[in-house]
Amino acid sequence: MTDTRRFSGVIAPVVTPFGEDGAPDADRFIEHCEWLLDDGCAALAPFGTTSEGNSIGIDEKMELLEELVDADVDPKKLMPGTGSCSVADAIIMTEHAVELGCGGVLMLPPFYYKNPSEEGLFRFFAEVIEEVGDDALKVYLYYIPPVAQVGFPLSLIARLRKEFPEVVVGLKDSSGDWSNTKAILDQNPGFEVFPGSEVFLLDGLRNGAAGCISATANVAAARIRQVYDNWQGPDADRLQGEVTALRKAIQAYPMIPFLKALVAHYREDPVWAEIRAPFTEMPAEDVAKAVQQLATDHGFRLRFDRTA
Amino acid sequence: MTDTRRFSGVIAPVVTPFGEDGAPDADRFIEHCEWLLDDGCAALAPFGTTSEGNSIGIDEKMELLEELVDADVDPKKLMPGTGSCSVADAIIMTEHAVELGCGGVLMLPPFYYKNPSEEGLFRFFAEVIEEVGDDALKVYLYYIPPVAQVGFPLSLIARLRKEFPEVVVGLKDSSGDWSNTKAILDQNPGFEVFPGSEVFLLDGLRNGAAGCISATANVAAARIRQVYDNWQGPDADRLQGEVTALRKAIQAYPMIPFLKALVAHYREDPVWAEIRAPFTEMPAEDVAKAVQQLATDHGFRLRFDRTA
Repeated sequence: MTDTRRFSGVIAPVVTPFGEDGAPDADRFIEHCEWLLDDGCAALAPFGTTSEGNSIGIDEKMELLEELVDADVDPKKLMPGTGSCSVADAIIMTEHAVELGCGGVLMLPPFYYKNPSEEGLFRFFAEVIEEVGDDALKVYLYYIPPVAQVGFPLSLIARLRKEFPEVVVGLKDSSGDWSNTKAILDQNPGFEVFPGSEVFLLDGLRNGAAGCISATANVAAARIRQVYDNWQGPDADRLQGEVTALRKAIQAYPMIPFLKALVAHYREDPVWAEIRAPFTEMPAEDVAKAVQQLATDHGFRLRFDRTA
Repeated sequence: MTDTRRFSGVIAPVVTPFGEDGAPDADRFIEHCEWLLDDGCAALAPFGTTSEGNSIGIDEKMELLEELVDADVDPKKLMPGTGSCSVADAIIMTEHAVELGCGGVLMLPPFYYKNPSEEGLFRFFAEVIEEVGDDALKVYLYYIPPVAQVGFPLSLIARLRKEFPEVVVGLKDSSGDWSNTKAILDQNPGFEVFPGSEVFLLDGLRNGAAGCISATANVAAARIRQVYDNWQGPDADRLQGEVTALRKAIQAYPMIPFLKALVAHYREDPVWAEIRAPFTEMPAEDVAKAVQQLATDHGFRLRFDRTA
């Protein structure tokens, strides 16, 4: 059976490095992206929540994406975040991603106004899709109610798929609620659904999910990939158990500052820990303890020398 | 006693007209701004929540502001919204507003990530202020927890004022919670505090507020202005009572679509009702009933012929 999915497997919402001047650092970014693809990621989702995507300027994002594609990272493996509270800016970023040949875009709903109507949300996506007006556009809906608050009820997903079957092809579910992921999977066969955490990877795959898009794939793609590669094998539950335990250990710390601190630590490159407001860096002593604990309890360490 | 406040009185967060092509309509915008200043507004706050500010693209906003200043609206009377989830984009828009000579900017905190630390929020504003680096910059903090969710605890206000006494000069409080407004006023003498609704105008003025910045000032500035002009007079409470009653009647409808529908109705210009997703226009039959009810119960009608 041919796999007709555009995206599948383990996808990292790439953390964004900032240089000493506070601007996004293209060199470190490209290096990390290449390392992630080498570490087991099937694809990359820059400018997601973990990427501080909404903390980066629109022009900064478009420039960074161009530099990544210029560095010969296959754009078909890129699913950048192009959502915005403004339909105008969402169109600009989505058009740009399509022009660069990106395999898909991961789109937040407009998230400033709370409790928008389903009709209003439908119109937002319809307007982006119609304005971009390109068959190459593949939209993955980005459902992350704990942060964006605004979300995608099942009826909205159904309406968008019905109206734009060749464009609205998938969804990332970061609700953290397996029953929601399961309901989306059950009602949408063929839809490329990615749980937002590898904790739900095996359950997801057994129910038709395409993989997972997870923050921790920034530092643990190789292990998570093991679950993806062996999900029908005898070791699947044990592998999932290990991955779940590691995820829980990592998410005991503030996720985004900690991921950047881990990269900074193992790359011996303190600049990597730079983070944009409203986040703040994790204190050095907390990082040291956490690194030690993950190494001891989970045999966790990052190896960047492999691709050096 | 000299009034050293930069802004005071009734300020409208100007509703933004969109043309038939869906783009912001500079002509209608300028016409409405001029009418508002004539109707009793002391100043204007474009690109606020009522303005669908976050639904408008960054370039669209900067262009609209330029057209407004080019049309000879005094930039000292403008307090545009320049906040963004991204410090980079907030800097671009704030710098632009200062360059145009705007009397102030009304800045949302970064609102994507929920429950940011106070330190993180402080850094965000410090970075914008330091990067813009212009004494002409006057920042009004925009506190609207029901929508932005992220807000300004009293300790953050104090820290920002202490660090940037000549820059952080005021706040709009759209919490809808008088006890919060009162606490900010009590702890910040000399700070230019604007309740986000005229319902709190008289109480505000009696406690040191500078005026109000209110959605309904788009259609009722003249009446609200009566409270501001007569707040120490014998009729103050009666005037406030009438204004409060009208506000409550208006806010019984979906505020932003209804304000635009009112302008469209009385200008006999249906294009004015255009609204961006995720909002949707108010149904015509609902508008007709509401217009009739406001006219009957509150003698409310808009007169655009005065300035024609």
